Amino acid sequence: MEHGGWNFKILDVDLSDRRIKEKKLDLETARKFLGGRGLGVKILCDASQKHGVFEAFSEENPLVFAVGPLTGLAPMSGRHVVVSKSPLTGTIFDSSAGGFFGVELKFAGYDAVVVRGRAEHLVYLEIEDEHCEIKDAEFLKCSNVTETSVKLGRGGRKVACIGRAGERLVRFANIMSDVHHACGRGGLGAVMGFKNLKAVVVRASRERKAWWKHNGIADAEKFEEAKEDMMRLLRASPVLKALSYYGTAALVNLVNYMRIMPTHNFRRSFFAAAENLSGETIREKYELRSRSCYGCFVACKHFTKSGVKIPEYETLWAFGANCGNADLEKIVKANELCDDYGIDTISCGGTLACYFELTGRFDTTASEGGVVSGSGQEIVELVRKIGERKSIGAELAEGSLRFATNRGRRELSMSVKGLELPGYDPRGVFGQALAYATSNRGGCHLRAYMVSLEIVGKPKLVNRLTFDGKAALVVIFQNLAAAIDSLVLCKFSSFALSEEEYARVLSAVTSLDYKAEDLLNIGERIWSLERMFNLKHLGRLEDTLPERFFESLDEEGFEKALREYYHLREWSANGVPTRAEGLHC
Amino acid sequence: MEHGGWNFKILDVDLSDRRIKEKKLDLETARKFLGGRGLGVKILCDASQKHGVFEAFSEENPLVFAVGPLTGLAPMSGRHVVVSKSPLTGTIFDSSAGGFFGVELKFAGYDAVVVRGRAEHLVYLEIEDEHCEIKDAEFLKCSNVTETSVKLGRGGRKVACIGRAGERLVRFANIMSDVHHACGRGGLGAVMGFKNLKAVVVRASRERKAWWKHNGIADAEKFEEAKEDMMRLLRASPVLKALSYYGTAALVNLVNYMRIMPTHNFRRSFFAAAENLSGETIREKYELRSRSCYGCFVACKHFTKSGVKIPEYETLWAFGANCGNADLEKIVKANELCDDYGIDTISCGGTLACYFELTGRFDTTASEGGVVSGSGQEIVELVRKIGERKSIGAELAEGSLRFATNRGRRELSMSVKGLELPGYDPRGVFGQALAYATSNRGGCHLRAYMVSLEIVGKPKLVNRLTFDGKAALVVIFQNLAAAIDSLVLCKFSSFALSEEEYARVLSAVTSLDYKAEDLLNIGERIWSLERMFNLKHLGRLEDTLPERFFESLDEEGFEKALREYYHLREWSANGVPTRAEGLHC
Repeated sequence: MEHGGWNFKILDVDLSDRRIKEKKLDLETARKFLGGRGLGVKILCDASQKHGVFEAFSEENPLVFAVGPLTGLAPMSGRHVVVSKSPLTGTIFDSSAGGFFGVELKFAGYDAVVVRGRAEHLVYLEIEDEHCEIKDAEFLKCSNVTETSVKLGRGGRKVACIGRAGERLVRFANIMSDVHHACGRGGLGAVMGFKNLKAVVVRASRERKAWWKHNGIADAEKFEEAKEDMMRLLRASPVLKALSYYGTAALVNLVNYMRIMPTHNFRRSFFAAAENLSGETIREKYELRSRSCYGCFVACKHFTKSGVKIPEYETLWAFGANCGNADLEKIVKANELCDDYGIDTISCGGTLACYFELTGRFDTTASEGGVVSGSGQEIVELVRKIGERKSIGAELAEGSLRFATNRGRRELSMSVKGLELPGYDPRGVFGQALAYATSNRGGCHLRAYMVSLEIVGKPKLVNRLTFDGKAALVVIFQNLAAAIDSLVLCKFSSFALSEEEYARVLSAVTSLDYKAEDLLNIGERIWSLERMFNLKHLGRLEDTLPERFFESLDEEGFEKALREYYHLREWSANGVPTRAEGLHC
Repeated sequence: MEHGGWNFKILDVDLSDRRIKEKKLDLETARKFLGGRGLGVKILCDASQKHGVFEAFSEENPLVFAVGPLTGLAPMSGRHVVVSKSPLTGTIFDSSAGGFFGVELKFAGYDAVVVRGRAEHLVYLEIEDEHCEIKDAEFLKCSNVTETSVKLGRGGRKVACIGRAGERLVRFANIMSDVHHACGRGGLGAVMGFKNLKAVVVRASRERKAWWKHNGIADAEKFEEAKEDMMRLLRASPVLKALSYYGTAALVNLVNYMRIMPTHNFRRSFFAAAENLSGETIREKYELRSRSCYGCFVACKHFTKSGVKIPEYETLWAFGANCGNADLEKIVKANELCDDYGIDTISCGGTLACYFELTGRFDTTASEGGVVSGSGQEIVELVRKIGERKSIGAELAEGSLRFATNRGRRELSMSVKGLELPGYDPRGVFGQALAYATSNRGGCHLRAYMVSLEIVGKPKLVNRLTFDGKAALVVIFQNLAAAIDSLVLCKFSSFALSEEEYARVLSAVTSLDYKAEDLLNIGERIWSLERMFNLKHLGRLEDTLPERFFESLDEEGFEKALREYYHLREWSANGVPTRAEGLHC
């Protein structure tokens, strides 16, 4: 096969006029943007060029489901990406999830599905190899994720859908696939809700799957070699070993020990009761089963014997320390509700913490471990109210920034560009602070997981309490993350692999010659394009952190690092890309 | 055992009055300096505090052979370190070598052997467990390394010795151990020669060895776990795989492809005939056997069927591209001579390249591949002359800086602080340029191997053509290298392992609690102390590169990075340590 990896086919669906087209993905675009996040960003920017500035909740806003050249082929590649303009941040937004949906889409024959316009009533999209149909979904109205997935998932169909939160335009609603896997954070579930698109359902025929396995890789021999080298490194990684055993809950004790666990809406950085929520405690308390995404040996997701999902680190923190809650069972319950309603747990927890602070719940608490009594039960109830958009839930469903601003207390929203911050206190990881401030999708740890360098020490330990030298590292990590999101691979792989391994396997799959630098250059291209989109759609961007942090964080050092960051990106002194050869938005 | 890893015993020998003492190594010093390089540096600084400034060729200059808490215990730990003041650079100098000598010394019961003073006539030191004797070595006068090693190495004794070059005070004479392993670069072999110390011979009894294996590790269970994790990572590393197969010769094609192979005394950065000297060519040409250091699975050293050693990358380059020579067999021969005389190949090749340029040999060469005709044979003859200090060899034995300065052409010495630069052109690896300029032992790639980041892409690829962000990385790499040299481990392990693995195995061996940061702090302590020694002994230090490089290298960017480097080290604006708590020199 001349070029493996891609289908070179995009399904383009307009819900407004119920038009379904197949478009060609040209080799040049594939080569330059790979797939996944990169391809989605390119499609959003094309739409922005055509339509000018559009709203997240508008017919002009495309919703792109995309896979990459490595999806379903390389180790840890059972993922897909969704890209659209976010109703929470107003920025361009990509979000990815593991599971089986992405691989099914790829094997069915598509690199991406672009959904445009808005249906008149609730519909879902059904794809079976080259057949695609827009189907009525009124019978699924108000059904949550589990119910929807069961009803649409018969016969091995893979389902990506929204729950009530998405239908009700909760600004941090998720798109859930394979029941348990979330495309989270920026509310792309609400974009789906706005479009009246309840679900995308995919099935690849046995023939198509067999075809991919036999023909999808350009150089099978080189691929096997590259894969073997990757697998050796992956299996040797102590971090992946910990993720296999504990899941991301392994982080609870480490993060707290390092005094960077945001507590009480980031008023403190240590939660005395953290042990209650730790990976170690969870393993003691529950008999665990692990489940993997497509073809992954790590299997980082854990479930109880009766099938209840163990929350991720971010969730344990967001509904735990950040809300002053040490009741593990209530967190498990809140997490279950979030998954079923299709709600992002970080933004939800961050919004609740903001609400708790605003209503004085943290002021009177002198209780042991920073625990706010009754908070666990309250969280569960509030999650339900958000999912239903009922009473206070309607206000909270707007996210912490809108909520706090409406209440005249904007400063209590612990967010960057409107996205609630995750569970690593920037006052103790300066590189992560800079990464938060400059992130293209707002307060996110996954655009550049500097914690890996600053806390986990992988691939190399760096001093976490200085801004010096961090700008260059943030640029590298942002570029690499953008490349990984476009390949599409799981970011956990980067605890063990470096650019070289990615480039080798990509070269083997596609028969194109990719070097390690090429991947970083592709990442840079995607990053610049995202920045251009954001500048066009939002005007000047605030690359900063909530005021609270600068009470103790060295603001001058931060500003200096930010200037250095602009300089390294070859942007103007106020952060505008100046050298964007051939990039348009 | 309460504290494994150390013997807590130093053998202190004064050759002037033939006094042999055993001293205690206290736990506090061991904890803070580990062993190897750190311990040697501490001992040199103590001497400097006591005697004030001393010359390399003086009775006051101690010569320290040291091992570390991991020597002979952890994977890739078959090494020892020698520390003294260098007669080539005038700086404090540490040099390490693999093989079996270090492990024998450790198992015999010592953390270090300190040799002070100067013997009246040629002697050698014989150590058998707790017995140590100064023995006559007049019968070995003028014998080279192989002969000396054979004569003294009977009955399994391990020998570290000098050849004629050391006896004749060639300023880049090596100390060779186990025949083939060189403590090279700074001429510590000449310090041995000045002291009239022909060799150090060690034997550990079977009982002592058995004792170490059964009692030397504080927490055997934790150790086995840590070791297993290390081994998994080491075996998975593609870089170590390449080193196993090709040895460091694997670098020839890569470095040349990247256009950073210094050619004709650094007048060019590409050698058209490099393929002749590549690892691939060597494997085709010779039937190879590999030999390992004590207990190492990598076995990076290769020999021909008839036992001739294949040169390392640096040697292939120094006697190859840098001298305009493409005759592989002549390089093999020159390397063999260097090993037998005990001569450093990098400094020797650099000095010859300087001589070739000075005598106009590169001016007339327009020949294919930059090859200077007849250079191969000439190199072999010149090496011999240097070893014998005969005719032009006497001048060249002073090293390129003294040689070029004497001839009024100082600018032709491609050295930093008098140490000839290794085979990575700083104009193409900016981080390495900064590492060369700030290295405590002069033009060296092993104080901070930035090439690993900038070319090999391990553990992470960084843009090689910028100074931005490099200062912080150089500091980290320098600190880490100092820690590894003090543990004592092979630096190749760091292609696969990070601080965390080192800290875990060290904690298991010693029963002390070391975290990853602790290792970097120890490295920083050692680095500061070395800097203090150098400032005291040399006055102001020139942290710069030969002028030639600034014809194309961005001098302003370099100066800015240097200032940032001082700032990160918390040194004054002119590079003097200001915050050296408890460190004295």
